[in-house]
Amino acid sequence: MTAYHKLCELAREISILSSTGSVLGWDQETYMPDKALHFRAKQLAYLSGRAHALATSGRFLAALEKAEGEKHPRHSKEAANIEVMREEFERAFRIPTKLVEEESAATTHAKAAWVEARKKSEFALFAPHLEKLLGFARLKAELWGYDGEPYDALLSGYERGARTREVAALFDKLKPDLVSIAREAVERSKSVPEKLLRGKFPAAKQQQLNREVAESIGFDFTGGRIDTTAHPFCSTVGAGDVRLTTRYDESDFTSSLFGVMHEAGHGMYEQGLPAEDFGLPSGTAVSLGIHESQSRLWENHVGRSHAFWEKWLPRAAEIFPNLRGVKLKAFLAWVNRAEFSFIRVEADEATYDLHVLLRFGIERRMVRGDLKVADVPAAWNDEFKSLFGMTPPDDRRGCLQDIHWSMGGLGYFATYSLGNLNGAQLFSTAMRQKRISDAAAMCDYAPLLAWLRTKVHARGSTLMPADLMREATGRETTPKAYLAHLRSRFLGR
Amino acid sequence: MTAYHKLCELAREISILSSTGSVLGWDQETYMPDKALHFRAKQLAYLSGRAHALATSGRFLAALEKAEGEKHPRHSKEAANIEVMREEFERAFRIPTKLVEEESAATTHAKAAWVEARKKSEFALFAPHLEKLLGFARLKAELWGYDGEPYDALLSGYERGARTREVAALFDKLKPDLVSIAREAVERSKSVPEKLLRGKFPAAKQQQLNREVAESIGFDFTGGRIDTTAHPFCSTVGAGDVRLTTRYDESDFTSSLFGVMHEAGHGMYEQGLPAEDFGLPSGTAVSLGIHESQSRLWENHVGRSHAFWEKWLPRAAEIFPNLRGVKLKAFLAWVNRAEFSFIRVEADEATYDLHVLLRFGIERRMVRGDLKVADVPAAWNDEFKSLFGMTPPDDRRGCLQDIHWSMGGLGYFATYSLGNLNGAQLFSTAMRQKRISDAAAMCDYAPLLAWLRTKVHARGSTLMPADLMREATGRETTPKAYLAHLRSRFLGR
Repeated sequence: MTAYHKLCELAREISILSSTGSVLGWDQETYMPDKALHFRAKQLAYLSGRAHALATSGRFLAALEKAEGEKHPRHSKEAANIEVMREEFERAFRIPTKLVEEESAATTHAKAAWVEARKKSEFALFAPHLEKLLGFARLKAELWGYDGEPYDALLSGYERGARTREVAALFDKLKPDLVSIAREAVERSKSVPEKLLRGKFPAAKQQQLNREVAESIGFDFTGGRIDTTAHPFCSTVGAGDVRLTTRYDESDFTSSLFGVMHEAGHGMYEQGLPAEDFGLPSGTAVSLGIHESQSRLWENHVGRSHAFWEKWLPRAAEIFPNLRGVKLKAFLAWVNRAEFSFIRVEADEATYDLHVLLRFGIERRMVRGDLKVADVPAAWNDEFKSLFGMTPPDDRRGCLQDIHWSMGGLGYFATYSLGNLNGAQLFSTAMRQKRISDAAAMCDYAPLLAWLRTKVHARGSTLMPADLMREATGRETTPKAYLAHLRSRFLGR
Repeated sequence: MTAYHKLCELAREISILSSTGSVLGWDQETYMPDKALHFRAKQLAYLSGRAHALATSGRFLAALEKAEGEKHPRHSKEAANIEVMREEFERAFRIPTKLVEEESAATTHAKAAWVEARKKSEFALFAPHLEKLLGFARLKAELWGYDGEPYDALLSGYERGARTREVAALFDKLKPDLVSIAREAVERSKSVPEKLLRGKFPAAKQQQLNREVAESIGFDFTGGRIDTTAHPFCSTVGAGDVRLTTRYDESDFTSSLFGVMHEAGHGMYEQGLPAEDFGLPSGTAVSLGIHESQSRLWENHVGRSHAFWEKWLPRAAEIFPNLRGVKLKAFLAWVNRAEFSFIRVEADEATYDLHVLLRFGIERRMVRGDLKVADVPAAWNDEFKSLFGMTPPDDRRGCLQDIHWSMGGLGYFATYSLGNLNGAQLFSTAMRQKRISDAAAMCDYAPLLAWLRTKVHARGSTLMPADLMREATGRETTPKAYLAHLRSRFLGR
């Protein structure tokens, strides 16, 4: 066995521990009874601790150094894997195992506190947890180090190679266009009736439609499933095991359906990673900004398109008789209406990124130390007012709406907008191939998925996100395709 | 911290690993998608291996020896915990970690093969797996060592202090009485109409009734849940987290209901163990023969009683309108009818132990090397014919019906009949207290549960099963109470 293979064996061992933690995390959100929380926190902390101890062990470092000493061709998978493992080692090595365990236990409790705080709309219940997790994040940023600002150290953990200043510049450039598109889109949508759906859409029937749609776009249920949770997510809990979740609004089936298409987009990326490389960088998604490109592509570019509903509206009307009589044109206008609203995950495409910009700004200030936890609700509401022209009526619909901070996920939000840009750019590139766009026009997405499999999924983490985008689309991420998409969809130009 | 406390910390660490394995095992049976099997086997093997390596480590032995060096009062919890941990260490230490990992991986695959083999009723699909697992069992018996025969080494892993020869002698003594009671009960039951229930009992409504009943007898759903599996079980996957499973027959709601009462009996034992001692012997059930006493007590002594159905038949008829008009007397005669049947888990009380005796004999011969795996179906069918007077029409209803062998659980079956004896003896002792029997007559089982909590659950593994029975009932396990119960229930005397 070569040193490289020995290194891979260790990496796979680490992935057994971390994926086991993912099973427990999934279970916590889906089925775990309340009284189990305290012990579950211990289990998760233990698993994170063991994984981290192994990832930073002398044994791992020795294997890494030996593998680095071997000659692997410059652009080979082997070289890429070794390079990423070195990056990950350097990152992990700077964080003591004790801190990993403490943070894991703290997030298990913080998640439970967040659920409670959000339910009661009482920020004070969550504030001490956020304080603690912000402390961990700031400490980790110092331990990791950074050139520019501490937020860089967090952001680059989610988006390889990203820098806060560059992302901020990109967002600053985007913002005027986004704001003007959003305002005009909202204005134009005022002619679309707010209420289109009538009657009840039973959850069991939504499940049936969701499953049919997810299967038809390519999600593989022999290696995955869909469950119900308060906050939808996609989690890979092992090789051949990708789990999506959703929630049901019985007055509007599209909310769950678009949610499932979104998570299935994440899930198909995971299912398209090279299975034999599970646990290695080459078998792992490269970044959240690429991940989100897949979910947004299927949710929005496919799921809100004319071709899609031409096929699926009649089918939906078979499942939900109360849909009969709803015209395709009216339905499409309705699923693509824009309005300013409080909840990011329910926001339409035209206003979505404004939510992201707000969070990015607030997080950046928190991490810098410019914004105190106690002042987050007020800062949120002020910023919201300036972007959306309205103030959240309570923190449940304000700064308590997102799960991320309770999971310690500071530095994460920017990737949602990067995902929108990447998704639009990938989609428009793929659609330039006639056989892909012809098939998509007939609601056959197999050629599109095949293209994504080759250009994105199969690459794992062997390329930096910027290089992946360059190879797939001919250029780095730019706002061009995304803005064109928004203008075409919402402003008809 | 004393040496004892350090030892306990290590034991708790081991229990984090093993309970994590239980979460994954539960998930495998309930929700895991098919393609995940291969990797799940790796995860489980890894966790078993790590737990075993820690339980047999020099670190653990040193802590154990130090704790043994401390003076703890002879009958204290501390002394009992140290004693059991020494027993467990001696057992674990004799088995190499590699073997534990190999066996774990083999059982994950064997379980999947068993499901397939049973579905197709094709023993040949399962035979190579059984061969492999029997090999592991025989090897482990040799490594553990035994005074009498290799089966002792396996049996005592499930039932502390039990010896094959003594159990065999007990069963030999029981057998004539069991056979004669069974034959007479079956004869008498011929006057009970086979078909009493009409129409459909939808699974969703069965779930509702099951839950009400489980709650009413004392199962705590804030620390537990019920899911659906092919083979019902109860699994504790962490402190405060006890999970039951059941399956639904929509033509007969009692099958799932009695199953749930059975598993809830197991579950309430687990929920009654001292929570603060989770992971220590004093917080762990002592043996399967005691465990099964709890499940059989709630399923049969409570669940098939007149008092129980006096309350629950009217409630069931509210949930299932097709039950209206069914008379209590006829219903009771029907749920307590006896007949010779092929499937153990569906067998009535009067014939149940004959199934156990058969399996005990076959296993003992397999482990001894007197019966080849290939000859198991024929041996099973011959023995079945001689006990029940009929031959299983296929292996699905013969030697492929039980999950145990596929889990490597050889040496396990005898504890089912020990459980019946223990359950009857505990129940009859408790019922001698007027306040317990008066309450039970009104379908109030809180005093009975409180008695079991004190006499059985709270003891954990601090007493040997025989001593626990002696302290709780005044004598070791004897067939007396059980035979009296069977005669009273089935022969009216």
